[in-house]
Amino acid sequence: MASRERIAIDAMGGDNAPAEIVAGAIRAQEELDVEVLLVGDPQAIEACLKQHHSSSRHVEIVPANDVVAMDEEPLGALKRKPKASINVAMDLVKSRNAQAVVSAGHSGAAMAASLLRLGRLPGIDRPAIGAVFPSMMAGKSVIVLDVGANVDCRPKYLDQFAVMGAVYSQYVLGIPDPQVGLINIGEEPSKGNDLAVRTHQLLEKNPRISFIGNAEGRDVLSGRFDVIVCDGFVGNVLLKYTEAVGEAMLQTLQEELSQGLRGQLGSALLKSNIKRVRQRIDHTEHGGGLLLGVDGICIISHGSAQAPSIFNAIRLAKDAVANRVLERIQSNIDELEKSAASSKSRQDG
Amino acid sequence: MASRERIAIDAMGGDNAPAEIVAGAIRAQEELDVEVLLVGDPQAIEACLKQHHSSSRHVEIVPANDVVAMDEEPLGALKRKPKASINVAMDLVKSRNAQAVVSAGHSGAAMAASLLRLGRLPGIDRPAIGAVFPSMMAGKSVIVLDVGANVDCRPKYLDQFAVMGAVYSQYVLGIPDPQVGLINIGEEPSKGNDLAVRTHQLLEKNPRISFIGNAEGRDVLSGRFDVIVCDGFVGNVLLKYTEAVGEAMLQTLQEELSQGLRGQLGSALLKSNIKRVRQRIDHTEHGGGLLLGVDGICIISHGSAQAPSIFNAIRLAKDAVANRVLERIQSNIDELEKSAASSKSRQDG
Repeated sequence: MASRERIAIDAMGGDNAPAEIVAGAIRAQEELDVEVLLVGDPQAIEACLKQHHSSSRHVEIVPANDVVAMDEEPLGALKRKPKASINVAMDLVKSRNAQAVVSAGHSGAAMAASLLRLGRLPGIDRPAIGAVFPSMMAGKSVIVLDVGANVDCRPKYLDQFAVMGAVYSQYVLGIPDPQVGLINIGEEPSKGNDLAVRTHQLLEKNPRISFIGNAEGRDVLSGRFDVIVCDGFVGNVLLKYTEAVGEAMLQTLQEELSQGLRGQLGSALLKSNIKRVRQRIDHTEHGGGLLLGVDGICIISHGSAQAPSIFNAIRLAKDAVANRVLERIQSNIDELEKSAASSKSRQDG
Repeated sequence: MASRERIAIDAMGGDNAPAEIVAGAIRAQEELDVEVLLVGDPQAIEACLKQHHSSSRHVEIVPANDVVAMDEEPLGALKRKPKASINVAMDLVKSRNAQAVVSAGHSGAAMAASLLRLGRLPGIDRPAIGAVFPSMMAGKSVIVLDVGANVDCRPKYLDQFAVMGAVYSQYVLGIPDPQVGLINIGEEPSKGNDLAVRTHQLLEKNPRISFIGNAEGRDVLSGRFDVIVCDGFVGNVLLKYTEAVGEAMLQTLQEELSQGLRGQLGSALLKSNIKRVRQRIDHTEHGGGLLLGVDGICIISHGSAQAPSIFNAIRLAKDAVANRVLERIQSNIDELEKSAASSKSRQDG
């Protein structure tokens, strides 16, 4: 029998740390058959643990007495604070005392820490941050990457993003044959900016993915695509826009639905249905971001994450470990390089 | 007394042409004190006109026996069809028989026709398409440009977009001191891709606009910005995404709100309130796109535009003509060039 997955949790990262982080981690250890390692200030963590009587099983605490704040410049902070919780969590993976990291802290700091402590997977030019977006098809989501790690990209980076996203979609989200798209402003291969046109050519002949073409803005949430690649500038704008649009819609609902006497009556009757709308729209329900291309499994939760989001992030991390996502990315990238080399030598010959 | 504005309407462009186009145009002529020139197939237009008994005032028809279809490659189609309605409408402005064009047809064709027939305003490097987005502040909208004319941009283009957007915001939408932003992935001037960093530097010292900094994805709809500039790739993805998100939200509402007996009762009570939500979300309620930087006023409606959207587009066109938007763009661009030249000579000296 395989041993349980060991997941290092950055207990100090995020707006609701450590209480909500600890609560999510305890639930995960109880329900998901994983071992969690809570990384952070032992006293603060102990205090949170005491609130939970169900500690039938021992929870491991790994001391880390510093934290990178949300408003700090990540690289400088990580170097000034070697014992920051995110650094210590990454080191646990490096030393093979854990197999994955989950953090709701500063996502730039998590990305930088993973690069500094774990490094890139061989063959990966640029790691990326993937985000799981909801879609219009109930129960279906779409991985968009990169959403912020690389603002200026080359076609080759996006080609690799596509491979990494497809592996995650298949082995973590359980999609059998992930359909991959490229964000663009039209359906035709010739459409788009220079990056998009050249990336389209690479994706079309990438044997490791099922590329089905360009995804226009209107296609992102359609459910037709499982993985959508773009540069980190476009992806980051879309991600933050999506969060804000959801909030704007919920606010509009709130303002308009309860207007007038009929509105108040109707809203009261619809209370639970409106709650369901809220759940479908609310971004915090949709899992975490993924650091892809670094030599370790890293899941980033939203800074405002509460216990259920942390629980979901730990489940993602467990699935990624159990399904050997790193090895699969590695072997797919190797194959991609080989096929690129052989197609080049065919052309040269 | 100034003579009435004369607006050329592409009666054949759009999914609902010519009936809805003609209906919107007639209403505009009756209510807005403008003269409309309906450009297209005279028989088809006459048939639509007959449906409206209120034709107290004569409506002018300008024959054009061809049309650029939505699925045609614009440049080729425009050249093959010199008498396409969009070409004839542009020619009316060129020959000073009209002062503005309104079309709900192929937006790429409208852009290309305006460039071929009217040309650029002197000093403008690249014309742009501006789109009016709703915002979270009731009654407040934001102009985003470029949303598709220029997928690869230089900083100077975006600097000019900012000037053109601000003139439109002030003199067509009536915003006294339009607040201008740059789409970016963070607030700091150093954030973003190469284009964003270099554009930020130009916008900061642009004396013709009130630049208040970077707009992240979450800020686009906040209402804090009146004009937001970006390259046509990012803008086009955002525009199409926005349309789809609105539809997705409305679909979610429809699916969830009426679930169950309480849901059916509640939804019945909320009928008019839900309609208001729909109106606030629905993109077709939010006016048209603007072709900025060509030597003529051109308003593009959504392809699915119905009479109210056409009416709104004609009102925008009238306001743009009455407030001498072209001259104002021209003089601001001249001033911008002068200040750039003097700042350069100061540096050189």
